[in-house]
Amino acid sequence: MLLAEVTGSLGSIGYGLAAIGPGVGIGIIFGNGVQAMARQPEATGLIRQNMLLGFALAEALALIGVVMPFVFGK
Amino acid sequence: MLLAEVTGSLGSIGYGLAAIGPGVGIGIIFGNGVQAMARQPEATGLIRQNMLLGFALAEALALIGVVMPFVFGK
Amino acid sequence: MLLAEVTGSLGSIGYGLAAIGPGVGIGIIFGNGVQAMARQPEATGLIRQNMLLGFALAEALALIGVVMPFVFGK
Repeated sequence: MLLAEVTGSLGSIGYGLAAIGPGVGIGIIFGNGVQAMARQPEATGLIRQNMLLGFALAEALALIGVVMPFVFGK
Repeated sequence: MLLAEVTGSLGSIGYGLAAIGPGVGIGIIFGNGVQAMARQPEATGLIRQNMLLGFALAEALALIGVVMPFVFGK
Repeated sequence: MLLAEVTGSLGSIGYGLAAIGPGVGIGIIFGNGVQAMARQPEATGLIRQNMLLGFALAEALALIGVVMPFVFGK
């Protein structure tokens, strides 16, 4: 008799894995961004602009993980 | 007879995985933030502002992991 | 008796794993990019151009993870 009452969808695990990389990546982007602002405060606008561009592109990877279970079957 | 009494939902594992990346990422943001403040103490307000912006955006990835099991089925 | 109500496709997990590396990598690219802009603001166009080239090549790895389940069978 195998008694394993495990429930849930693998989609939750898929999203969790997909969020690891962007979580670290966004931290690296903003971490270096504030360092760059401290180096050249007058370039803050330029730095923030490109920082948020990178954030959006990295965040997209995690959000793709939200919709993939609907593509592959949840 | 195999008796493995494992219970629980995969949603808990999904959230745990989703929290790994932002946990490291937020550490990188604040770690670099205090370094940047030490470099230019007069830019502390600017640095704290962008540091907390990055924190909120990284934290969101982990919080999405809280609600995903309700979307995919817990 | 097998009682394990686990649903979902391994394709979601595959995509999640494939997104870990590019998520960190894109963060490193943009993190160093904004550092480079702060160092030489007049080279912003050149830096952004090569930054986005690296982004596209790293992102492709994650997007390949989207289509692989269709190749191997979802």
